[in-house]
Amino acid sequence: MTDSITKRGVRIIGLDPGLRHTGWGVVDVAGNALRHVADGALHSDGESSLAERLCQLHDALVTVLDTWRPDEAAVEETFVNRNPSSTLKLGMARAVALLVPARRGLSVTEYPTNLVKKSVVGAGHADKAQVQMMMRVLLPGCTINSADAADALAVAVCHAHHRTSRLAWAPTAGRGGERRSDPPREARPRNPPPRERP
Amino acid sequence: MTDSITKRGVRIIGLDPGLRHTGWGVVDVAGNALRHVADGALHSDGESSLAERLCQLHDALVTVLDTWRPDEAAVEETFVNRNPSSTLKLGMARAVALLVPARRGLSVTEYPTNLVKKSVVGAGHADKAQVQMMMRVLLPGCTINSADAADALAVAVCHAHHRTSRLAWAPTAGRGGERRSDPPREARPRNPPPRERP
Repeated sequence: MTDSITKRGVRIIGLDPGLRHTGWGVVDVAGNALRHVADGALHSDGESSLAERLCQLHDALVTVLDTWRPDEAAVEETFVNRNPSSTLKLGMARAVALLVPARRGLSVTEYPTNLVKKSVVGAGHADKAQVQMMMRVLLPGCTINSADAADALAVAVCHAHHRTSRLAWAPTAGRGGERRSDPPREARPRNPPPRERP
Repeated sequence: MTDSITKRGVRIIGLDPGLRHTGWGVVDVAGNALRHVADGALHSDGESSLAERLCQLHDALVTVLDTWRPDEAAVEETFVNRNPSSTLKLGMARAVALLVPARRGLSVTEYPTNLVKKSVVGAGHADKAQVQMMMRVLLPGCTINSADAADALAVAVCHAHHRTSRLAWAPTAGRGGERRSDPPREARPRNPPPRERP
């Protein structure tokens, strides 16, 4: 990763949260050009307790952010299904995906699943294979490591499209901009919280 | 807080997670004796984004742990209701309640709500007023700041009762013990995770 920030443009990490597997994908955006940087998935051990699994996801995500140093984060809004136990677990994974980048001072924007799919495939109900295929078209040369990673890259690409229109609409939005409560929702801590004390 | 660790015994923090208000209560246990130390509630701003609210809860909980330095944590298992959106938010708050103490190397045990109530009131369906009344009986001299704090103290007292029987049953359990998967569930990171990098 020898590119300077000026050359690489804005680096975005997309996250597709799940307690067992949380997909992540990093892209660089410079103007209308998108470049694939890296992707993968964070895993937690299904045999461990919930607290341990959240620690595993947390620490793995910290390592990814340390390695790739994105400027902005985009998180897929978890699908709320009819099984309360699964919904609770998805909520926990999503909490990690929102908390870790926000605590580092990154702007965090959430996008509903159907908006992500519509942005990259053109249909809100596209399946995983279509999303993977479109990722290979939009990010030439990338080798996508898993379906979770493809979904995460799709969130990053969706954010890349929408952040431009948001910037055009409100020049003060974005990294230094104000928080907006209407979806897509951006979380920009106005006073970046202190790092955890040793 | 001038007591030495030897004099104070084991210090337990109980947590009753909620996205808007997360109750906390700290008690010291020495043998069969319980002593109230402190209690309160962490709040998040309902006008903020989810990521900001999770940061608010996280940072407030870090401050409480820094101030009172508990040895063990006990978390009430969130009530899974029929509203998926509320369940998701409860899951997020519970993730913060589990993650923050676990990352500091504290053992984290979860207790279902009805077990907590049964432990302190004698009935699994006791109401909040009964829990508060019993907290004043079990922890003489304490002034409880809110219903959330009373519920959190009840979780701490429940853990105080159960940790003794767990220790009697399995001498290696507890701070240095192994993780147990059967409820009440204890999360003891076998390799305490590294602190977040600056």
